[in-house]
Amino acid sequence: MKVNGERLWNRLMEIAQIGGTPKGGVCRVTLTEEDRKGRDLFIEWCKSIGCTIRVDHMGNIFARKKGTRDDLPAILLGSHLDSQPTGGKYDGVMGVISALEVAETLYENKMEHERSIEIVSWTNEEGARFNPAMIGSGVFCGEFSLDYAYNQKDTEGITLQHALNEIQYKGTDTVKPNEFHVSLEFHIEQGPVLEREEKQIGIVTGVQGIRWYDIIVHGKECHAGPSPMNYRIDPMQSVPSILTDLYQLSEKYGEDSRVTIGFIKATPGVKNTVPAQAEISVDIRHPNEEILTKMHRDVQAIVTKNDKNLPTSIKLNEIWHSPSVQFNERCIEAVDQATQYLELTNKKIISGAGHDSVYVSKVIPTSMIFIPCKDGLSHNELESAKKEDVIAGTNVLLHATLILQQK
Amino acid sequence: MKVNGERLWNRLMEIAQIGGTPKGGVCRVTLTEEDRKGRDLFIEWCKSIGCTIRVDHMGNIFARKKGTRDDLPAILLGSHLDSQPTGGKYDGVMGVISALEVAETLYENKMEHERSIEIVSWTNEEGARFNPAMIGSGVFCGEFSLDYAYNQKDTEGITLQHALNEIQYKGTDTVKPNEFHVSLEFHIEQGPVLEREEKQIGIVTGVQGIRWYDIIVHGKECHAGPSPMNYRIDPMQSVPSILTDLYQLSEKYGEDSRVTIGFIKATPGVKNTVPAQAEISVDIRHPNEEILTKMHRDVQAIVTKNDKNLPTSIKLNEIWHSPSVQFNERCIEAVDQATQYLELTNKKIISGAGHDSVYVSKVIPTSMIFIPCKDGLSHNELESAKKEDVIAGTNVLLHATLILQQK
Repeated sequence: MKVNGERLWNRLMEIAQIGGTPKGGVCRVTLTEEDRKGRDLFIEWCKSIGCTIRVDHMGNIFARKKGTRDDLPAILLGSHLDSQPTGGKYDGVMGVISALEVAETLYENKMEHERSIEIVSWTNEEGARFNPAMIGSGVFCGEFSLDYAYNQKDTEGITLQHALNEIQYKGTDTVKPNEFHVSLEFHIEQGPVLEREEKQIGIVTGVQGIRWYDIIVHGKECHAGPSPMNYRIDPMQSVPSILTDLYQLSEKYGEDSRVTIGFIKATPGVKNTVPAQAEISVDIRHPNEEILTKMHRDVQAIVTKNDKNLPTSIKLNEIWHSPSVQFNERCIEAVDQATQYLELTNKKIISGAGHDSVYVSKVIPTSMIFIPCKDGLSHNELESAKKEDVIAGTNVLLHATLILQQK
Repeated sequence: MKVNGERLWNRLMEIAQIGGTPKGGVCRVTLTEEDRKGRDLFIEWCKSIGCTIRVDHMGNIFARKKGTRDDLPAILLGSHLDSQPTGGKYDGVMGVISALEVAETLYENKMEHERSIEIVSWTNEEGARFNPAMIGSGVFCGEFSLDYAYNQKDTEGITLQHALNEIQYKGTDTVKPNEFHVSLEFHIEQGPVLEREEKQIGIVTGVQGIRWYDIIVHGKECHAGPSPMNYRIDPMQSVPSILTDLYQLSEKYGEDSRVTIGFIKATPGVKNTVPAQAEISVDIRHPNEEILTKMHRDVQAIVTKNDKNLPTSIKLNEIWHSPSVQFNERCIEAVDQATQYLELTNKKIISGAGHDSVYVSKVIPTSMIFIPCKDGLSHNELESAKKEDVIAGTNVLLHATLILQQK
């Protein structure tokens, strides 16, 4: 059994017209008029195959294709319909439309299935209008309170609650995690690995743990002219040693580790002044929480060492820690088996980006399926995925769903 | 013969009240009402000892204390009365008030002098309101046209010409460089050297040459999560090598060389993104133009080497070159002799900051006298100099003036 690739692709292209941009991207920011139109179209398609629609208090949409044993916990498939302001045609929406295609394929083939299939579209995954990202799935999973979510404001001061009401998607249905057996999310990789390694399917085993820091290097501001070099306490002169030490962590902890310096902010940051201070932004990641903890201790040691060895005073601010996520073994195995069955090239992969599945996995056994995207590009109007890969991934979603009916 | 230290100090403190700030600094920005009041007071003091006042088309004020041979080229002494918005009590104004004190000391002591003494206050030395800095002396010396200067605008769109008219200091006198025999400017060091080395007088032999660059490191923007380290072309990873090479120039070219990295600007400069680009600001200085040229070639070579060795593409933008200035030997010698005569601790020193004397020295034999300032601090309300040093420097100015009457 295979999905209807043409129908899937055509729907993806059709919904991309809602908020479509001249460059071929999509601007369908959460809880806007475009988002409403996208939601309406999705619900129309779901209803056409007899789905029951529920909308919860966060505007998360659940479309249920009933199985023969609707009393059993259902299989949750989906992602999100909202996009970045200059987003692409695949991020999120592909996971929703492919879930619909799975349900429709079963329906068309009169394939009996015990567990119901619930297609979900989560509200505000992108966080482009309301902070934080993934707030819809976050409330569903108990990560945030509804009250907290309702009071989040966009840059114009409009609350999320008000915006939900405006587009008439503040629902009244209560949907709970314990209604579900497993959850699968199909998404583009948003990275370069599958494309480079020429693999069609990424079997996603988890999500990287992330730690954010600012390293503050305190020096003494002085004029670039009169102050001899040996009088200076120059934070920028400490930068090479600190950066070299940080980047060495990625060598020490192997190919799954990441070290990113997003910026260095010098204060006052003018051409003819030795800065008083340099703030080094640090983002470290690893899929294994134990190793991430080792990296964390090394960051602390790097700061201590450089503070001791260099004339500047160096402090570490720990900003954020998002522990790594290990997806459910049974779900990973189902995706793996479906991929083998379909004889698709594949690779076990770690997600470097956040997804609704991060929260969902805390309350429902979960895994994800990735396909390559062109040049690893995402959150970009030029975001692109191959039609054959979209279809292949949806077939994996279909067969993993069938496997998980039994497991 | 010595100057009247109390009078000098009291005047310095009195004029500091005009635009005086609660923190003990001065806000007497060029061509404002405060600047007008400062100018008026200065002229009143000059007139009280019989000076003839001229104001040129740029609002530069020339107060002439006539000598017995007024037909001979005169001796020009002075600096500027304007301050930074959060400036101090010494930068500029001390050089003007001390020149007045020299003239008054000669007057009081009925000391005959052949050459006239011309006390000058240059308009807009600071450049805090109108660009470029030192525009008053710049027009006087033919560096800028009057028309260019008149059309400079402040941030509110007011032209310099309009502002001159507003405070009634757009003069009609024509004053020319060939009217002058030599020029001396007395100023605080604006750096830490004299204070640290416990020298009362800096015999200024010249001004550093300066070259400004931006080094642009081009990489490839990608997400901090999904992109493995060995896939990245990360401009921040090129920073340590480039910075290390640049700072080594100051070791190679000795204690008179300066290397300053004022900022590194990453684009887009967000925490979870490997930047597409890093822009490294570079300021190099040396008092010897030949050595500065060697440093310049080394900067070019550093960029070429790193561009070749690193995965990023690295380009050099040359922004600005201000050649070094060598002050007049005769004037330097006069300051030196005066300092010896007064038995003051001293040091030959290079100015790291720009001064009106940079332009003046191109058309009139010139040198400068420095005294220490607390912690090397300047352009700051906490700018501070010792009364005894102010008096000592003014005595050097007096005796160098007497020496230069003969030389």
